[in-house]
Formats: sequence, structure tokens, C-alpha cells
Amino acid sequence: MKTLVEEPATAQTSERASRCIARCRELAACTDVPGETTRTFLSPSMHRAHTLLSQWMRAAGMTVSVDAAGNLRGLFGAADTPRLLIGSHLDTIANAGAFDGVLGVVLGIALVEEIVLTSVSLPFAIEVIGFSEEEGVRFAKPFLGSLALIGELDAATLARTDRNGVSVEDAIRDFGLDPAELPSAILNNSSFGYLEFHIEQGPVLESEGHSLGVVDAIAGQTRMTLDFTGQANHAGTTPMGHLRRDALVAAAQWVVEVERYANECDGLVATVGKVETGTGAGNVIAGEFIATLDVRHARDEVRKVAVAHYLEYAEIAGAARGVSVSATTQLDQPAVPMDTALTELLAEAESNATGQPARKMTSGAGHDAMIVARRLPAAMLFLRSPGGLSHHPDESVLPADVEAAIKTGVEFLADLRDDSATRAELAAKAQARRKRARHA
Amino acid sequence: MKTLVEEPATAQTSERASRCIARCRELAACTDVPGETTRTFLSPSMHRAHTLLSQWMRAAGMTVSVDAAGNLRGLFGAADTPRLLIGSHLDTIANAGAFDGVLGVVLGIALVEEIVLTSVSLPFAIEVIGFSEEEGVRFAKPFLGSLALIGELDAATLARTDRNGVSVEDAIRDFGLDPAELPSAILNNSSFGYLEFHIEQGPVLESEGHSLGVVDAIAGQTRMTLDFTGQANHAGTTPMGHLRRDALVAAAQWVVEVERYANECDGLVATVGKVETGTGAGNVIAGEFIATLDVRHARDEVRKVAVAHYLEYAEIAGAARGVSVSATTQLDQPAVPMDTALTELLAEAESNATGQPARKMTSGAGHDAMIVARRLPAAMLFLRSPGGLSHHPDESVLPADVEAAIKTGVEFLADLRDDSATRAELAAKAQARRKRARHA
Repeated sequence: MKTLVEEPATAQTSERASRCIARCRELAACTDVPGETTRTFLSPSMHRAHTLLSQWMRAAGMTVSVDAAGNLRGLFGAADTPRLLIGSHLDTIANAGAFDGVLGVVLGIALVEEIVLTSVSLPFAIEVIGFSEEEGVRFAKPFLGSLALIGELDAATLARTDRNGVSVEDAIRDFGLDPAELPSAILNNSSFGYLEFHIEQGPVLESEGHSLGVVDAIAGQTRMTLDFTGQANHAGTTPMGHLRRDALVAAAQWVVEVERYANECDGLVATVGKVETGTGAGNVIAGEFIATLDVRHARDEVRKVAVAHYLEYAEIAGAARGVSVSATTQLDQPAVPMDTALTELLAEAESNATGQPARKMTSGAGHDAMIVARRLPAAMLFLRSPGGLSHHPDESVLPADVEAAIKTGVEFLADLRDDSATRAELAAKAQARRKRARHA
Repeated sequence: MKTLVEEPATAQTSERASRCIARCRELAACTDVPGETTRTFLSPSMHRAHTLLSQWMRAAGMTVSVDAAGNLRGLFGAADTPRLLIGSHLDTIANAGAFDGVLGVVLGIALVEEIVLTSVSLPFAIEVIGFSEEEGVRFAKPFLGSLALIGELDAATLARTDRNGVSVEDAIRDFGLDPAELPSAILNNSSFGYLEFHIEQGPVLESEGHSLGVVDAIAGQTRMTLDFTGQANHAGTTPMGHLRRDALVAAAQWVVEVERYANECDGLVATVGKVETGTGAGNVIAGEFIATLDVRHARDEVRKVAVAHYLEYAEIAGAARGVSVSATTQLDQPAVPMDTALTELLAEAESNATGQPARKMTSGAGHDAMIVARRLPAAMLFLRSPGGLSHHPDESVLPADVEAAIKTGVEFLADLRDDSATRAELAAKAQARRKRARHA
């Protein structure tokens, strides 16, 4: 393997990046809605995506199966050896781009192809996983595929129904699978680590001129709704001052503070994304104002302090105008740090592959790695998103960045091959998490 | 007349206020929608309201007619003498209270009843007018009744249709009237002044402990829509700072400034009442934010300076975040000052009737007086609105305030009777406005 990494870029290395991009485009044509890319959990078009990926996997010498949760799994190497998982998701949002999710699966296959091409032997197997569900579109709950992998697809989730009244369990059966087999979808005990490639879906790498970013943590998230209640009144006959109880102005003062505080708190992102004024009219003072709040940070204590400040400030802005505030928490999800050892290995590989120091960054969005990390040491590599664009048909990747990701992956596998101490450490961590899960 | 005003309050004077309130409640039962009060322009229930009012008018010795715009008109006195108009509107919003509009007509009748009761002779006739339309509900255009009175119900307005496709002209015919007769609805050349009683529909008089308020002007209004355009982006993956173009935060900063500036500008009211974030979601930075702006002041130059400041500030708040702003003006309506001489007479009458200095105030809402003032010197008296409540089934008036309004009206008529110089001045002004209208 080393020999390949040390070679200069050739027509062949550029070709492998182009092939990855072409495969993503081919997968984008597997869609439930002609003319766009929409491929939800276990929909008919998922069969076609599986067919394409299975062909490429088999051609690379992998053994292919679909587990009972609809995850496509390609194993390269002996079933009884330690196993590194490389994966991402195959489902999309409605009218999606061609790279969110699938690129991580296609890159997993590309790495296996590189191993075959260079006839290197590894002391571990590679299992490439295409998760059946991550976006949460069909059943309004994300991560169904990776939850099945770690044995946390519970009965309540299986009973959820889509808008046609079809349950998750029904959907599994309709796809030709057997829900009773879900326990065998759980990751193999010999698995010791998880690697995920994913597009950044944000503007940071591009703005700093980096091809790649190494994820050190997936941010914790708070999602809330704040309800500001004042008094609807005539906009012309109610003077300014204490006779006015304007819920909208109270909320606006709070929105400005949400931004100001986040601007001054390193790594914090805080967003009021959606607002509503009940039965608002231009000539009526808003009696009610409902606003969402989304707060994210890699450190949970920083996020909690921020949320507490925001709630306190909302009360202050309200009290100044006779406006009361109530808040409901929809989500309070802890941050998930990536594994230090695996992430260091990935950062070194990236640095060697690109000749630049690795850009460590927090992922502001959730990914399958966040779920799999409950059972396995996990690491993530981001590829630059041109224009910061994602969840959009114009979503793209640069061929040079894909090439850098493959180089990094090849380097990472070589380093992992040569570092038996780290492999042992990872295996021990994985075993400890399995044990903890059994006792939970 | 003087003798009656100087009498102390008796059981009889309290009874006349109660009768006015009872009449308003009786009129409230004339409704297009059972169980609530909804009476729009020339609807079937308007016939029933006309029937009740006509009975009271005739009993007071008035000659009753309905003009071609559906205005109910009761004349007390000879047709060829100078004429004082007293009026307000008979239509309501949907699910209205019992006093908005009709109270002004009922009080006009009550004043005629007082004249009859005290056998006073006046050197002018009184024409009580119940305008057919002021709220703008049925044809999404207000003031149809008073516009007809001043000869400004134009062809475009007559062609407007309601949501059933019925035009104003059709509605006039359906009510049993003839649109060809509209020119004869125009106010008589001998008219020299207009007086309107109306509930305040705001909280000012109540908060200051006043029964009544004398309107010195009807505020000018600007109504605009501002469109803030930034860039929708992922709330988690887009860091704070220059990579974020959040239309909502830019707008929020502007909303806070709208309030701050108005708080510091005497008599200005400015309201952002309705807002929208396009296809907003809690985890998406708002790419667009649309907000209404409503600005009112008794002096047009103060309002114009305020609006200019608001537009400039919106640009500043936008520019700080890469957000562009465009504005559309829906309404730019000049302030309408009430007639100084008539208003002074009314203020003196109020002060004599209540024993308090008159509370002069600007009307933040539009009224028929605003339209009639284009042709006649006009004055308005507000009655306190308990709880500041209007446009609501719980809208009310206090009997003592109604009594104070009747006393003020009686005093006003007596003062006007005794002040031939002012009457001559008013007649000259009315003639000048007629002349200007003919040449416009």
C-alpha cells in the first residue's frame, strides 16, 4: 500500500475520482420521482440503487448482502477476522443532490478497489455499509439504518407509519425482507472501528481553502419552540409604551440577542429559523409570536449555558413589554465526540495525503457516525462542499477533493495496518461499549 | 337649550344614556350571521337596522330617506335651511361589537330627541346620517358610504366585486336602490359642518381617566411591506459570521429599531404586525423574511421622516449580514386635521359638560369624518373604550360616558346656535371646499 500512496498523481488516480463521481450520478438516477433525486427508505428506487452498488461491490471481490433493515453490506475479507466498517447512507431528502450519503459508500468501494489493485493484504476485513435510512423523510425519524446496526431499532419505531399508513415493519416486508431477522443486522462482534466519508454540507472548508476536514465531534443540539404572548390590539389606536404588549418586538429583541451571543461564543451556532404570528395583520399588534430555536456546540456545557441565557433573555425582553414567554424543548441531544485514536490516525493520513495540516472541525449536522459511535470507535472525513451547497440538486464535489479523500483513505488503511497497538486499543473500546450496551 | 344643560343629572338624563345603549344592543341583533354581529354593506340585515333606526328617527320628528348608496338619512328641520350633519357608520366587521359606528348614529338621534324634549328652536337643520359602509369588509374598500356623500364613489369602485362576484352596483340594485340616483346622494349645498361621535377603540382615555376625547386630527398612515432577502442555509453547518446571511436576524434588528424610534418620537405609532419566513424550518437559516410596517402620525412630515429612517435602518441591518431589502408602499395617506373652529366649540362644550379640561387627541384609526372633511368642516368626539377593546364581541361603553357625550352634544348645539359668526365661517369654508372639488 505505501508504494501506491507515495506515487505521484497519475491519469489513473484522477480516473478513480472521476469514476466515484460518475457512480454517484448514476445512483442519483435511481429515484422515486422522475426528473429529480428522491429516494426514501426502502422505496422501489432503493432496489435499483442496491443493484448498482452490489455489482460494483462484487466486481471488487466483496460478498454482498442486504440486512433486515435494508442496509446494503459488502464484506471484503474473511468473516471471522477483525472488521473495519466504512459506511454512509443511501437514502435522500426530497429533490436532493447526488452526493449527500452515497459518496461515502462509493468511496468505501473505491478503497476496496485500491486494495485489490495494489494486491495488498490487510490484517482486518472491510465491511462497506450503505445505510437504508438517515434523513428521516419517510417516517419522520432519522437514522433507522444505523440504529438497526447497533440493535436500537425499537418496537415503537417499527410501529411508526408513513403518510400512507404503512409501518416501518410493513415497509421492511414490502421490500422483501423479514423483520424477524433484525437481530442479525446487528454489527459483528469482531468490528473494531467505523469510518465515514461525507460531504461537509457547509461553507467552512471552501472559505478556508481546504479539500478535506477531519471531524472531531458531532455537535450536541437543542431544539426548542418559544411562545411569546402579548395582547393583540389596533396598531393605530394603541400608543407606544406601556399600553402596548407587542409579542413580535419582544421576540425580535431576543432574536438579535441569539445572534449576538453566538457571535461571541467560539464554535456556537444558534438559529431562529421559523417564526409565526398567529392571525397576524399589518394593522394589528401581534398578540402572539412563536419562534423556533436551534443551538449547537461540540461541548454540551457550553450549549446548556447558552440555552439558559437565551431563555433568561427572552423573559427579560418579554417583561419589558408585558409579554410572557413559554418554552418547549423538542430535542436535547448530547454532543458525540469522535474517537481520539482513530481521528488522530485519520488526521495524519489526511495531512500526508494533502501535504497540509489537517483541518479539524465540528460537524454541525448529525450523521450515521453519531449513532454507530455508541458501539464503535468512529471517525469522519468531510469533503469540501462547493458553495456550501447541500440538500439541493446543484450539490457537488470537486474531483480533486474526491481524489484527496481516496488518498487519505488509502493512507489511513496503510497506517492502521501498520499500527497493531491502535487496532488492539480500538478492539478493546469496542468490546467495552458492547458490554455497556448489554447492561443498559 | 342652556337651561337643560345647566340642570343637574337626573334619573331622566341617566335614562337617555341607557336608552342609547339599549338601542345599540338592539341593532347588534340585526346580523347576517346568527349568534354574532356581522352586518356588511347592504346585506339583508341592513334592512332591519334601517327599519329600527327609521322608527326612532320618525318618532323624533325626522324625515327619513335612504340614498342611492344605502346611507340612511334623517332630516330634522326645514330642507332649505343651513344644515349640520351628524353621522357615523352602520356596517360592522365580522363578529363585531355593538357600538363601533352605530353609537354615533344613535347619539345623533338622541340629540334630536333632546331638542324636541326641550322645545328649543335652532337656526339650522340637523341631518343624521347612518353610513352604509365604512369597514371595507364586503368589497375590500372602506368608506363607500361617505365617499358617495361627497360624490367620490367612482366607476372603478362601483365595478368592484365581492367574493360572490356581485359588484357594488349590483349590491345597490339588490337592496332596491338605483345607482343612477347616486348624484342625489351628494350632500346638500346648505350643509356647513359634520360631527361624529365614535368609540375610541383604544386604551388612552381609560388609562388617563377621561370619559371623552376631542379629536384634533386623524393620523396619516403609511403601510408598507419590506422584503429581506438573505440565503437559506443549514442551521448546523453554517457558522456564525460572514458565511451566514440570515434575513430573519436582519429584520429582527430592524423591528427593534421601529419600536425604539417610535418610543422617542412624540405621537408616532409604528407597528410591524405580520411577518413571514418563506418556507421556514427550525433547522434552516431564513433566506427570506417579509414584514409589514404601519406608521401613523398627525403630522405628515413627522411620519415621512420616520418612514425614511426605517427604510435606511433596514438597509443598514441588512447590509451587516449580506441581506438585501426591498420595500413596497401599499398606502401613503395624509393626515386629516379636524376643523379648528368646530373642534374648539366641541372642546368647550365637552369641558362645560364634564367639568374637566377637554382631552385633545389624534385618532390613530380612519373614520368617516376623514372623508367628509374633504367637503365640510368636521369634528369628532371619542367615547372611552373600556379595556381599550373594539372589533370584538365584548366591546362596550360606560353609561356615564354616553351621558357625558349627550351633554356635550347638547351644549355644542347650544353654543353653535348662539355663535352666528362661527356658523358663517363654517359655511364659507364649506363653500370653498365645494368649489375646489368642482375644479379638481
